[in-house]
Amino acid sequence: MAIGDRVLMGPGPANVYPEVVAALGRPMLGHLDPEFLAVLEETVDRLRAVFRTDNRLTFPLSGTGSAGMEAAFVNTLRPGDVAVVGVNGLFGQRMAEIAGRLGAEVVTVEAPWGEPLDPSAVESAHPEPAVIAVVHAETSTGVRNDVEAVAHAKGGALMIADVVTSLGGVEVELDDWGVDVAYSGTQKCLGVPPGLAPFTMSQRARERRVERPSSWYLDAGLIAGYVEAEGGRTYHHTAPVSMVFALHAGLGVLLEEGLEASWARHQACGELLQAGLESMGLELLAPKDHRLPQLTTVRVPDLPGGLGEADVRRMLLDRYRIEIGAGVGPLAGRVWRIGCMGHTARPANVTLLLAALADVLGR
Amino acid sequence: MAIGDRVLMGPGPANVYPEVVAALGRPMLGHLDPEFLAVLEETVDRLRAVFRTDNRLTFPLSGTGSAGMEAAFVNTLRPGDVAVVGVNGLFGQRMAEIAGRLGAEVVTVEAPWGEPLDPSAVESAHPEPAVIAVVHAETSTGVRNDVEAVAHAKGGALMIADVVTSLGGVEVELDDWGVDVAYSGTQKCLGVPPGLAPFTMSQRARERRVERPSSWYLDAGLIAGYVEAEGGRTYHHTAPVSMVFALHAGLGVLLEEGLEASWARHQACGELLQAGLESMGLELLAPKDHRLPQLTTVRVPDLPGGLGEADVRRMLLDRYRIEIGAGVGPLAGRVWRIGCMGHTARPANVTLLLAALADVLGR
Repeated sequence: MAIGDRVLMGPGPANVYPEVVAALGRPMLGHLDPEFLAVLEETVDRLRAVFRTDNRLTFPLSGTGSAGMEAAFVNTLRPGDVAVVGVNGLFGQRMAEIAGRLGAEVVTVEAPWGEPLDPSAVESAHPEPAVIAVVHAETSTGVRNDVEAVAHAKGGALMIADVVTSLGGVEVELDDWGVDVAYSGTQKCLGVPPGLAPFTMSQRARERRVERPSSWYLDAGLIAGYVEAEGGRTYHHTAPVSMVFALHAGLGVLLEEGLEASWARHQACGELLQAGLESMGLELLAPKDHRLPQLTTVRVPDLPGGLGEADVRRMLLDRYRIEIGAGVGPLAGRVWRIGCMGHTARPANVTLLLAALADVLGR
Repeated sequence: MAIGDRVLMGPGPANVYPEVVAALGRPMLGHLDPEFLAVLEETVDRLRAVFRTDNRLTFPLSGTGSAGMEAAFVNTLRPGDVAVVGVNGLFGQRMAEIAGRLGAEVVTVEAPWGEPLDPSAVESAHPEPAVIAVVHAETSTGVRNDVEAVAHAKGGALMIADVVTSLGGVEVELDDWGVDVAYSGTQKCLGVPPGLAPFTMSQRARERRVERPSSWYLDAGLIAGYVEAEGGRTYHHTAPVSMVFALHAGLGVLLEEGLEASWARHQACGELLQAGLESMGLELLAPKDHRLPQLTTVRVPDLPGGLGEADVRRMLLDRYRIEIGAGVGPLAGRVWRIGCMGHTARPANVTLLLAALADVLGR
């Protein structure tokens, strides 16, 4: 079968940095090999830099971003605990579902898909929640929620932030904001294949963590015994070595560019894309002041003769090898999701996408 | 930092097939891209061939082998259910721990570390267990447990088998034996990096599966909605694309060689290794009739002047770039674990290891 390449402008995975592809091919090492442990240590240091945190308990979790989400709740929620969860898209819904399965009393604070959460509504939803959880960048809607405002007002609760699509693409300042637990995914603005969930937990959260959570695999206490040198490198599970090499390399690219420079690059690409879409007469879903640069939702316009929205995506793929994403949930069939993340976030890719879309739409 | 390579003769990861390294570098694709879905479909077909099963619900789970273990219990055990678990090593212990965290009533059937389980003791441990779980190849001891005998006598219970270290290295016949749920890891006899857990579930198990398990991430019903075309490819989590490419390639190498040929190769390497160790005057831990070829436990002998067992491992690594594994649990400091799995399972590697060990031990 022929091997195709793509310009990946969907909601993720994005294209992967060339340095990351090279790192995937590094010779295999054992998960206790001194050379691998040195790479792991440096990866953790780099994650702290990217998360903007000093949290000791920081590591690449051995699953995708959704495993990171589950780990955040598994390690902080006991049955009967109150979890306040902001829901204005698919990933907020997922947070509520996961917390519910763990036996928590889930209080959701909703906003329409495409609108930001109201921080004061989240803050006042319950007098004494155990955790408050908000998605920073809602990949299903292209909306940025104000994690900082919620975190500043968290009170005695532990603050959980989903930074899957935001990390590396827009400003994330976990310690300054007062976020206790955060997780990300590798396949968005980090420019690494999907498969790992960067994860971090504050000392405050660590002290209050669940001692023997229902999930053994995601037990942060057991994982700490391996990822922290002072834990004696106690075997928990075999680290996904090649993917750690890949993440190590991707974080290296990002930090060499500089976090602020990466945010600016994503911002510039997002503005170019969004201006181009609007000048083509298309309408953006997310309001300007809460619009993500790295993930743009655009309403599906009236299409020429018999064309469906899926046909447009298929034509972009077939003619131009460009992937864009479909809408999900209540936005299915109503929007496209156009990502510009990680290695994909280059003006040339935006220019190509705009020209290709103009061609396909006949505009 | 210099990049080192190794002959990986520990308990895993093993060396990776060159075809797998090449596959890791394939261009990234979206998890709904038709080309990726074709690769995923073929990977699932190949997994069925390697598991020797017709189970429709078969897929690479997005976590390491330990995530596969957790998924096996998460999807079959309800709080209060009885789980009979064979325990004669670390991974049997882990099964019992995971089942316990899920609220099951765990009945363990034990054998000393280094001895096989008694199948009749497992069968008679409880009149009506919901599940019976046994580790096929105990990586902590080098012992093969008789899964076939236990599975044949499972009665109304669901039979769970851990085939992490056995799959591809020794005979595994899930359907013939009557195993309902099985999982493996990619980094052992499949010659692929760690990170995925091949997973399969019989129709019988599927009909009795937990409807809304405590783990959302490992919910086999939700995962089926994505991995089975008839599920409509409903988004659950982003598939770890590069690792699926790698597994696809590794299974291709294995099936091109032929399963029986791979078992024979592992057997030949194991016999060569074990004969060589014994002719060096070393003592093997596992009894001959339940000794794995792909993972050999050898007792640490009296060592020359002041040498510790960790020094021996370090000398093998420094002088020969060979990794072997330490003992764990009650066998820590008492045995070495020597793996010969996947791409590592070549007579030349055995010859090198035996010569290197003779040098380091001064024999």
